[in-house]
Amino acid sequence: MKIVLALGGNALQSDPKDASAEAQLKTCKETAKSVVDFIEAGHTVAIVHGNGPQVGQIMATVEAAHQANPKNVLFPFDVCGAFSQGYIGYHLQNAIGEELRARKINRTVGAIITQTIVDRNDPGFKNPTKPIGSFYSKEDAEKLASEKGYVMKEDAGRGYRRVVASPTPIDIVEKEMIKHLVDNGIITVSTGGGGIPVFLEKDGSLVGAPAVIDKDLGAERLAEILDADCFIVLTAVDRVCINFNKPNQKQLAEMTLADVDKYIEEGQFAPGSMLPKVLACKKFVTNNPDKHAIIASLENAKKVLAGETGTKIVAK
Amino acid sequence: MKIVLALGGNALQSDPKDASAEAQLKTCKETAKSVVDFIEAGHTVAIVHGNGPQVGQIMATVEAAHQANPKNVLFPFDVCGAFSQGYIGYHLQNAIGEELRARKINRTVGAIITQTIVDRNDPGFKNPTKPIGSFYSKEDAEKLASEKGYVMKEDAGRGYRRVVASPTPIDIVEKEMIKHLVDNGIITVSTGGGGIPVFLEKDGSLVGAPAVIDKDLGAERLAEILDADCFIVLTAVDRVCINFNKPNQKQLAEMTLADVDKYIEEGQFAPGSMLPKVLACKKFVTNNPDKHAIIASLENAKKVLAGETGTKIVAK
Repeated sequence: MKIVLALGGNALQSDPKDASAEAQLKTCKETAKSVVDFIEAGHTVAIVHGNGPQVGQIMATVEAAHQANPKNVLFPFDVCGAFSQGYIGYHLQNAIGEELRARKINRTVGAIITQTIVDRNDPGFKNPTKPIGSFYSKEDAEKLASEKGYVMKEDAGRGYRRVVASPTPIDIVEKEMIKHLVDNGIITVSTGGGGIPVFLEKDGSLVGAPAVIDKDLGAERLAEILDADCFIVLTAVDRVCINFNKPNQKQLAEMTLADVDKYIEEGQFAPGSMLPKVLACKKFVTNNPDKHAIIASLENAKKVLAGETGTKIVAK
Repeated sequence: MKIVLALGGNALQSDPKDASAEAQLKTCKETAKSVVDFIEAGHTVAIVHGNGPQVGQIMATVEAAHQANPKNVLFPFDVCGAFSQGYIGYHLQNAIGEELRARKINRTVGAIITQTIVDRNDPGFKNPTKPIGSFYSKEDAEKLASEKGYVMKEDAGRGYRRVVASPTPIDIVEKEMIKHLVDNGIITVSTGGGGIPVFLEKDGSLVGAPAVIDKDLGAERLAEILDADCFIVLTAVDRVCINFNKPNQKQLAEMTLADVDKYIEEGQFAPGSMLPKVLACKKFVTNNPDKHAIIASLENAKKVLAGETGTKIVAK
């Protein structure tokens, strides 16, 4: 099978208090075991990863260095995204390659820098909501807003932060390259953080956009482009739950699209957490009613393959 | 023809005083015109770029942010290299893609994060010489040396800087992926900054090395792995010169390996500038005596192809 695997934050950072590169690589080595379980079972996987904490960390680093000395370049947000793709791609290809060699599986893995086209008229740009980077005082926030055109919002009493849009991914610029590799059994890491968001201008240029793409939607877009047989979102829980954290909590083995709509209407899935995963799966199955999507835990790759865990999202 | 193109610093930064991301992208768009001249002539090019100023800039940013607030992660040097590959790869694929679309050439381009294996016993590690990142006082330098194991050296009266090794590249970890793409006519950007240097350990793991690989030697390694027909180093001068900047300066249209050895013995080529380019070409032609290498200027791609400019390095 051709599988697109979307890796969440827990695949890269297991301890939220340790944001070091060493900790990330260690977590990637655990993640690689699950990824290689899929490969060992004979599947070709295209991996997409999130980058929220990393790109925030990089942006905060860039801002702190620039504040300490204006000679340090204030790299724009799209470049910070490219930094994060290099960073995470390096660690994932390093870790997955090591696991492949350990299991004597002769497959190649590599990460591809990826641009994702978004629409300048996406409603997300009218009301940016995703906070990124450092906290600022009101005065500094107003200065940044007027000098750099940043949108700054007060963040839960902790100060002001830059907010950016989270537009819908429209197309993946490097799709032909990724497609070619996947169709030849080469393991790709791509579309990191949903891809570096770019606007396609009338003159044919692609201009970096100050935005964060939802990685699950980016991965879904890739799954459709690649004509993947299955779209799998790996996260920290075994199965999607309804009545989450309540006495009547219930794990779901399967959801139809009708179930999905009903549960969303009931507010069963937390925005910014389970909801975007469910929405991405809904999109994939809606557009490919003969295929299914799975939300499952990163640790139980073998059980997911055996159908023993995970929540299967099917058309009906 | 299958060509490996090594791009020097002038392909990414035209004004050494403007190290902004915006300036780099602008320069990349000029560079893309030359690169696409090769593609339009029907060749498949594998692009390798340097990253010296960028990785230094990133390291300085990371160090400044960490000094301002120790909560900002002190990313290790191999990760800074990965950042730079993401950064430059993004700009080059963005710029080359735009130029391909403008000329209606239906070819795909993308950048691949690349690890390059180096030897722990490389003599370079015994005597590191490449300065990177910020300047420090003697006291801070001694602290970093004892805490982080950095090798710190006094730099021409300007303070202390970290120095790293410049080992010989042995193998390119992602070679099968790059080979597959190049052999199918897909334009790759890879082996940025010569590749992220890694040690291959006995347990099969690849461990990031504090080192800088010469990008011309990294590109040469790739040219041999890809079995390229021609290895071209693009730089700021039309031709290699002897008696450079003297009244009897002479441009060379061709050099045999015997000429190369003689000129090197005479000290004709500046270390850190023309010498590494000549040495990389010498290596390629020595190992592939039926092929040739070219050192030429970035601006004159069409003339290079027509044999009207550039210095051809041939076996004899």
